[in-house]
Amino acid sequence: MTNIGTEEIYQLEKYYRVSLINSLIGYRALNLLGTSSADGITNLCLISSVFHLGANPPLIGLVLRPQREHNDTLKNIISTGQYTLNNVLPYWYMQAHQTSASYPSGVSEFDACGIKKQYIKDFKAPFVGQSTVRIGLEFKEVIDIEINGTSIVIGEVVHILAEDGLIGADGTIDHGKAETMTVAGLDTYYLPQPIGQLAYAKPGVEPHILKTDVEF
Amino acid sequence: MTNIGTEEIYQLEKYYRVSLINSLIGYRALNLLGTSSADGITNLCLISSVFHLGANPPLIGLVLRPQREHNDTLKNIISTGQYTLNNVLPYWYMQAHQTSASYPSGVSEFDACGIKKQYIKDFKAPFVGQSTVRIGLEFKEVIDIEINGTSIVIGEVVHILAEDGLIGADGTIDHGKAETMTVAGLDTYYLPQPIGQLAYAKPGVEPHILKTDVEF
Repeated sequence: MTNIGTEEIYQLEKYYRVSLINSLIGYRALNLLGTSSADGITNLCLISSVFHLGANPPLIGLVLRPQREHNDTLKNIISTGQYTLNNVLPYWYMQAHQTSASYPSGVSEFDACGIKKQYIKDFKAPFVGQSTVRIGLEFKEVIDIEINGTSIVIGEVVHILAEDGLIGADGTIDHGKAETMTVAGLDTYYLPQPIGQLAYAKPGVEPHILKTDVEF
Repeated sequence: MTNIGTEEIYQLEKYYRVSLINSLIGYRALNLLGTSSADGITNLCLISSVFHLGANPPLIGLVLRPQREHNDTLKNIISTGQYTLNNVLPYWYMQAHQTSASYPSGVSEFDACGIKKQYIKDFKAPFVGQSTVRIGLEFKEVIDIEINGTSIVIGEVVHILAEDGLIGADGTIDHGKAETMTVAGLDTYYLPQPIGQLAYAKPGVEPHILKTDVEF
């Protein structure tokens, strides 16, 4: 077994350390984050630090690094109050990855990377046409994390756009059928295979697989 | 396409809404969170709201719901200053799921669910013996989220315990080889299959798959 302690972590070569720390927690939610500036220039970036904050009210959190060059995203979220999260599929995941390149300000990653914009009535932020699960969010608050200069953005879910047949009888989205991908570390993409949907856990009751309409 | 707006979200049946909102963002990092009380009673809970906060310093965030019955976790983290995150494997994922049952205070989920404790020198929080990737963390700060009463806990990575051969030449952990699982929604478990590790994205350069030592 390898045991890497604090002192060794700080002595690791910079890119090795970044890759290692980014891959520690396992697979991460992979989404394209879509925004628009007040004057209509769209922006799209790949994000893997999205987390579920609560279901009532329906809240989602994400981490942004304001010191990065393409920091239009945070500015757009705060100025327009709207943004979208969109899942990534295997047949176009390389285009999604390409949105993380540092394009000059004023260039939309939608156009540069061949990603289709999709709009709905009364909502200004662009969704991704190629996605099968898309979330429209309303900005609620930003928390500045002093310890490393990042920002946690909290938003409320105000639109759920899912292709037909993806939401199961119990409300769970079938991400297998949706062909949603995931990422481990900075750049390694995976497609998950379902193993089992388990019954609600109770003390003294053996854990067991539910009979569901999810196709395993 | 299904379009569910704010008004419909609030009208959904409670458990349907919880399942839907929990499954929106896609696959999530799945870990067992291990703690110990000041007087040595261990606690273990399954958590899927862990997120990468930054690599330098190496920081990880996670969301806890203090209003839940088994809220010993937050108390333990704050009183001892130490906790662990451990990946979940297919051959014992049902036992991991079972830790989410509401055991009475004083009962350790390690014992109740057949999870092995593992300790290292000078670190009081218990790791999971059956895991292949284990993280030891030092508590840094807790942020109370007023909007829904949750707490975001931030910790610094001080130990990385990985089985031999899982850390690649570039520092990325091979979660395929580690047999790390992921979860979508509350209770549907998946095992990801690798699709591709992509080169660093640059404007004007076609996205492409790296030749790596990751076995695809």
